[in-house]
Amino acid sequence: MTPAPRSVTVALAQMAMGPDKGRNIEQAARAVGDAARRGAQVVCLPELFATPYFCQVEDPALFELAETVPGPTTEAMAAAARQHGVTVIAPVFEKRAAGIYHNSLVVLGPGGELLGQYRKMHIPDDPLFYEKYYFAPGDLGFVTVATPHAAVGPLICWDQWYPEAARLVALQGAQIICYPTAIGWHPKEKAEFGAAQLEAWRTIQRAHAIANGVFVVAVNRVGHEGPAPGLDFWGHSFVADPFGTVLAEAGEGVETLVVPLDLAKLEDVRHNWPFLRDRRIDAYGGLTSRFLGGPKR
Amino acid sequence: MTPAPRSVTVALAQMAMGPDKGRNIEQAARAVGDAARRGAQVVCLPELFATPYFCQVEDPALFELAETVPGPTTEAMAAAARQHGVTVIAPVFEKRAAGIYHNSLVVLGPGGELLGQYRKMHIPDDPLFYEKYYFAPGDLGFVTVATPHAAVGPLICWDQWYPEAARLVALQGAQIICYPTAIGWHPKEKAEFGAAQLEAWRTIQRAHAIANGVFVVAVNRVGHEGPAPGLDFWGHSFVADPFGTVLAEAGEGVETLVVPLDLAKLEDVRHNWPFLRDRRIDAYGGLTSRFLGGPKR
Repeated sequence: MTPAPRSVTVALAQMAMGPDKGRNIEQAARAVGDAARRGAQVVCLPELFATPYFCQVEDPALFELAETVPGPTTEAMAAAARQHGVTVIAPVFEKRAAGIYHNSLVVLGPGGELLGQYRKMHIPDDPLFYEKYYFAPGDLGFVTVATPHAAVGPLICWDQWYPEAARLVALQGAQIICYPTAIGWHPKEKAEFGAAQLEAWRTIQRAHAIANGVFVVAVNRVGHEGPAPGLDFWGHSFVADPFGTVLAEAGEGVETLVVPLDLAKLEDVRHNWPFLRDRRIDAYGGLTSRFLGGPKR
Repeated sequence: MTPAPRSVTVALAQMAMGPDKGRNIEQAARAVGDAARRGAQVVCLPELFATPYFCQVEDPALFELAETVPGPTTEAMAAAARQHGVTVIAPVFEKRAAGIYHNSLVVLGPGGELLGQYRKMHIPDDPLFYEKYYFAPGDLGFVTVATPHAAVGPLICWDQWYPEAARLVALQGAQIICYPTAIGWHPKEKAEFGAAQLEAWRTIQRAHAIANGVFVVAVNRVGHEGPAPGLDFWGHSFVADPFGTVLAEAGEGVETLVVPLDLAKLEDVRHNWPFLRDRRIDAYGGLTSRFLGGPKR
């Protein structure tokens, strides 16, 4: 039995997407190559990286952007993984059947092989984020993928607000939780609420790292997209260690972060702050309820 | 039907405890009166406020510090609540029977009446925090208490590291989660790890506010206690709003914070960031497992 690797280098490809799908995919392939040359072993791309964030409107014509898995986008990313010998976490707008579409991702190994697939479980629906129109909720459950470098729990964007999702992949053995993301500001809200929104987004994901003793990787897109008012995607992709400390954080432009992770830190933190030991699994049954009724008045 | 109050003023009585139980209780009663005069309606005291943090050693003689509920400590706090017309969240080292002790709290209404009781569910055990020796795990489950001012979900210290606990009281209708706490630095670790430990503690509790759209109140003790090396209790009691923004934070000395909370903010945040709507309750069954086996390799 070979000992598990003690470190892994991850890359966060923070991208700006244009209208041309082919060019977005080429850009992603170049980012994979660039990251590999800089030592990355696992490259994470942003949510729906092959297209603009089309969910700003509800338009049935946009279902044409979807693809099968495998399909052109996942094949292109498999080729990039194989060419550069890295693992790639590649989101895709998945056409499963006419009328059944998912916000998905695949995990592709360094030989280009499919290591795992995940379909976004928590689907948002908010002004300019009309995802419930496009995406059926995932039915693969939460998954953790054994890559050659580390056990990765891939989740997608809105999932990042749910402690349940992070906990479940951690209990499956994930050492790194990756969140491909497409989150941005409404331009009219940015001045008043922008800093608090970004801080809440960063805080809750750092907390998942703390609660579970795992590394957290969040990979967002950047740039203004959409018809006016549109959305300002805020970037700020980051990596947190298992105690929630931010190891690296991008700005608001195109940038690929390459960050080595010391997996021994995960064991060290879990020995010193043994939260997983003391969970009251006998008393958590209510978590599968929508609401528990409120207090008596 | 009277409309629910739209604001509530909470007090966080950050205290330093001495060896004399009577004086600690007097100090707490004075803090309740002081807070009430400053407009507080709900006063939260630190974990085990009647005594030094005795769990630094395992000594059977220290079980003598425990009391029944009701008992002298809860009666004194009920009198303070009644005298000043406020709700008091009063922790107590509870003797339930010989050999069955709990790290508990009572919620006392403005007439001094017992509104609710909670027994700490998650029990730590780490160097100088030997709580598993003293406290049987709580068997009342997670509780939310309807006070005249707001629905309060009381939890205790180590519970603050568990997203499950915060979620369960939020699902019960808690508007405010209160964490009486006794957390501090090991003096020898403080220079290297102290800032990261404090920040992790603040971050995970702010994240509970965000994930659940509730106010979070954490009330810690201060001062150095115990035989050398002892513990430096770090204070920094704070209140976070339902988007995780810190509204007020104490320093590292004795201090009572009095903070008005706008409960309308809770609805506003939940409307704009509707996390509770999208929980995948069909897929959370694994949360009642200790471990889910790790990935296949």
